[in-house]
This record gives sequence, structure tokens and C-alpha cells, in this order.
Amino acid sequence: MKITVLSGGVGGARFLRGLRGHVRATDPTSTITAIVNTGDDMWLTGLRIAPDLDSIMYTLAGENDEVRGWGRVGESERVSAELRAYGVGWPWFTLGDLDIGTHLTRTSLLGEGMPLSAVTDRLASRWDLGVRLLPATDDEVETHVVVEDGTSMQFQDMHFQEWWTKHRAALPAREFVQRGVASASPAPGVLDALATADVIVLAPSNPVVSIGTVLGIPGIRDALAAASAPVVGISPIIAGAAVRGMADACLTAIGVETSADAVAAHYGARSSGGVIDAWLVDESDAALLPGIAALGIRAAAAPLWMHDLPTSQQLAADALALAASTASGNRRETSRG
Amino acid sequence: MKITVLSGGVGGARFLRGLRGHVRATDPTSTITAIVNTGDDMWLTGLRIAPDLDSIMYTLAGENDEVRGWGRVGESERVSAELRAYGVGWPWFTLGDLDIGTHLTRTSLLGEGMPLSAVTDRLASRWDLGVRLLPATDDEVETHVVVEDGTSMQFQDMHFQEWWTKHRAALPAREFVQRGVASASPAPGVLDALATADVIVLAPSNPVVSIGTVLGIPGIRDALAAASAPVVGISPIIAGAAVRGMADACLTAIGVETSADAVAAHYGARSSGGVIDAWLVDESDAALLPGIAALGIRAAAAPLWMHDLPTSQQLAADALALAASTASGNRRETSRG
Repeated sequence: MKITVLSGGVGGARFLRGLRGHVRATDPTSTITAIVNTGDDMWLTGLRIAPDLDSIMYTLAGENDEVRGWGRVGESERVSAELRAYGVGWPWFTLGDLDIGTHLTRTSLLGEGMPLSAVTDRLASRWDLGVRLLPATDDEVETHVVVEDGTSMQFQDMHFQEWWTKHRAALPAREFVQRGVASASPAPGVLDALATADVIVLAPSNPVVSIGTVLGIPGIRDALAAASAPVVGISPIIAGAAVRGMADACLTAIGVETSADAVAAHYGARSSGGVIDAWLVDESDAALLPGIAALGIRAAAAPLWMHDLPTSQQLAADALALAASTASGNRRETSRG
Repeated sequence: MKITVLSGGVGGARFLRGLRGHVRATDPTSTITAIVNTGDDMWLTGLRIAPDLDSIMYTLAGENDEVRGWGRVGESERVSAELRAYGVGWPWFTLGDLDIGTHLTRTSLLGEGMPLSAVTDRLASRWDLGVRLLPATDDEVETHVVVEDGTSMQFQDMHFQEWWTKHRAALPAREFVQRGVASASPAPGVLDALATADVIVLAPSNPVVSIGTVLGIPGIRDALAAASAPVVGISPIIAGAAVRGMADACLTAIGVETSADAVAAHYGARSSGGVIDAWLVDESDAALLPGIAALGIRAAAAPLWMHDLPTSQQLAADALALAASTASGNRRETSRG
């Protein structure tokens, strides 16, 4: 079975690790391809940083810091201390030494003219990831946030990372702008991974700045609409709150309520021009199922909290089961029709 | 007094530290400007590395590793280990983590369009160096070495660092090529530092790839010839051997014998179109003094080994004394003439 996952960073990484575990335990011939958001990527002190690709790579490599929740385990910050002493960089954005090794490698290979997808292959080849990592695009698409300055009442534009990490998403966002998205193309392999998939999964990632940015790249939304595989999404919202991060601030900015059903409606049913066929919500949100079904989206409830590898594996199994029931339901409807 | 020093890396750094100590002890109003070789600079894994500028900066900042003889004290190599694991960079060229902090800062500022001289000012402003550091040029001039491949008998071109560090200068060099030198210009402040100096010193640095590269930048040799200050050089050769490094391999390649008098002849007397008025050799080379004087170069012998700060300070004092005697000698000759 070919499984293609659209993913952001940390949450997507945990889901992918669970999916890999499930696949290895049940059907080792299956392949997993992750199409990863690059909208959080940025240049910082001459380095090209790709937070979501790296979060997934480190997590699948078993090199992530489980306690801190991001970055490499056993990390140190000797280089960053030097940068601060010289007065460059963003003091609120910490670059670990091991992490800088990854960024330097990426920057160096990009500088030689290698596209990001090939660089990602090269970085990933160091580890046994069990998941093929594809950046959504090789082009530089950077998410910027338009916020209103409380003092001057003027609008101000900042890189997503500045809004997210420095301001902890506390400045009310008016708009998210994916710079460069209009002229971006899907990276090699992306459209094929959607067209030839047996199952497509939207990871429980930020619907606005992670999955939303991937879907904004011209060609990807159409490929999803045309895919023969069922598309199942996993809610990043549980009981009216973001599972992690500050997805609520992003949803509010685009006028979407922070609830599992509102996000399902935001994605929309494929049968009505949207991008999902099925939607998995947490058990605690089971009351929302009829409303989601009314949108033309097959809905199910299951435990969504990924506490550890077993719970992540079970979530992956539940998502694949929902996709299978969606596919057989579609077949039944097709044969009935 | 305004003292201007032409310098390479490690040897120049030690001399400058001694000179600073001497000046602080005897005439704190004096200023020291170092015009530093940039021919060893290179791009490595996306980083712009300037070994001579950094050697001097670290030494004057008291942050150099005295035991190892290069780089930062208390250095670690976590980033380099990552680069090796990803298979990039030169495994034989070690980049320390603290050192990478400097390179990243430099690379980042260069990337913003800041010229190397301004970047160097910015880096130096972190410390109390007591010496103004000027790169000889803001343009990229890189020393390459032409060697003969023993197997194919073909000539091969490599970056100086590859020849010097990887091959330990053991491959016979046929030629040194300063790439980009013809179109390079002296960095802002360089010509002025030569024109307005009261004393100009050639540090005991490699005459070929350090001082030679500085002198090769169009305009610098002429400025030296036109300077009103006496120009005193310090021999990097003691008793027929290089004080440090492998200067003998460089001298052999350009057909100059590894001896204090041969290097003096190579620089040549300013009165005959060369670049020095005076030449300081080690006590053990005192027998060479008459031969050097016969070249029209005022010569003196003094202990050249810079074992520690006191011996380096004494060397600086001896060089300045020789310069002063040269200047008064010149004045006498002028008044006689």
C-alpha cells in the first residue's frame, strides 16, 4: 500500500512515527511518503532553516528531544552564544549546535545549486527513516503574518517564526501571506505521490500555516481533488483546543472556530470541492460526528492524543481503517449509483 | 606614532600581540593598524572562512588556543562531526564550534552586502584588540597552488588550504596563483594606513603566500614604495629554517633559498625598487648582516623566537628601534646629499 501524508512539523512527525510503527508491524511492504510544509523555512544568519522537515527527520531518526519537544537530543548552544556575542541573529530563536550541522549542510548543498528536494534526500540518507520526505516545493515560499501594531494602529508584516516564536502568537494576526506561493511549483515527486497513493492522510498539523501552506502551492489542491485514493484528515483540535502549538490563533485569524467540526468544514468534503473524504476526531468530540457527516464527510471518533509510540500507532491504524471504510463506502455508493 | 604592519596569520598574530604590549608599556598614544592577508580565505560548506584575520583576532582577544597553536581556546567540534556524518565539507579541515560562530557571523553579514572590511570591524568590536584590523582587500582573492600529479604527470590546481593542511605542503608546488588578484583593490583604509604611517613593519609571516599576496594586490606595492615611513621587515627564517609552518616549501616553489638573507633579497631594498629599508634577522644569523647590508638594506640581529609575551614585546621593540635608526640614517643621508 502506498500511503501519502501531508504534514507540518512536530505533530506530523509524531503521527508519521506512529504510522511507520503500524506499517512495520502489519504490512512492511507498504511505503510512506510525507509531503512536508516549507512555509516556516527561513534564512537566519546565512543559514537555510527548514523546521518542519527537520522535526520529522530528527523524530523518525530517533534523534529528537522528547522532553523539550523540538530539536535534537543532547543539544548544546555554543555556536548560538557566539552569534549573540557578535550581535547577529535572532536572540529569541535558538539554534542548537547539532541542528546547525544540519542547516550548514543544507545551506552548503543549496549553494551548490542542489534543489531542496535533493538536499532533503541527501540529509535523510544518513538515517533509516522508513518514510520518504518530500518538501512540498523546492521554491522559497515563506509564511508572513500581518499584525496590527497596538501603538501606531499600522499594519506590520513579519516572518511567521517571529510571530510564532518571539511573540508566542499573541499579537492578533490579520492575515497570513505565503510569499512566493503564486509562482511556486510542487517539488518533484509530490504530484505523483498524490496521484498514485492508495491512501492520503492529512496529519493533525496546523490547518492554516502547515497543511494550508502545502495546499496553497499551485497544483497540489487539484492533485488532491483528482486523486483516486480516499483522503482522511485527523483533527488537530481536541475538545475546542489545539493539541499543541497555537493553532487557535491561526484559525481565528482566518475566521474559523477552534473546533474539530469547524476545521472539517474549513477543509470541506471532496465531493463538494473540498479536500477530505473522511475526518477523525477525538473520542471527546464524538458529539460532533453527526454535524460532520452532514457536510458529506465520513466521520469517526478515536483517541487522538499521541502520548507515546503505542498511542501514535493506534491513531495511525484508526486513520487507515477510516480511510478503508471510506474507500469501500465509496465503492458501494459507486456500484449503487 | 602610527604603526602599520603587513601580516599573515599565526606568526603575525604573535608579533602584533608583542607590539601591542610594547606600545601599551612605552607609548600608549601610538596606534597599530594591521593589513592582513586574505589569500587563505575560502568558502567551506557555505561558510566564509578568513584564517589569518581570525588568528589575529583570537590572539589579540586572548581567546586563542596556545597549546594547539591555532583556533579558539576551549573549542569543541560538535558541528563538524555532524557535517562529516552528512558527508559534506573537508574532513581534514576542522571547524570548531566557537570558530563556526565567527564564520557564520561573517557569512551572514557578507550576505547582507557588507564588505569584508566592515564585517571585520564588526567582529573586532566584540573585543578590546588594541589593533585595527584591515583585510588587505574586500575582494575575494584566493591563493591556489599548482602541483604536479606524481602519477599522471599532469598539473593540478588546488586551494592553498588543501595543499597546506591536507597535503602538509608535501606536494612540490610549481606555482602560486592568486585568483582574482588582478581585479582586486585595497580595502578602504589600507592605502591611507601606508601613506600616513610613521613606521611600516613586515611581520615575520610567510613571504610568499601571506606578505606576497598582500603585496600582489594592485596599489599596495606602490603605496609601500611611496610611503614616507621606514619599512622594516622581520625574517620568518631563522638559521635556514622556517620559524613555523612550511614557508620553505613556498620559497622553494618561487626559487628563493630558505635563508634570512635570501628572503631579504627577495623583498629587495626600497632604494632599488624593492619593499624594505631594513631587515631584522635572528642572532644566530648575524653572519648574514654584511651580505644584507650590501643589498642596500640596513640590517640588524636580535632574538627572533617569540616564546612568550616578553620575548614578543622585545622583538617589537627591536624592530621599532631598527626602523628608527633607519629613519635617522635616511635623514642623515638626505642632509648629506
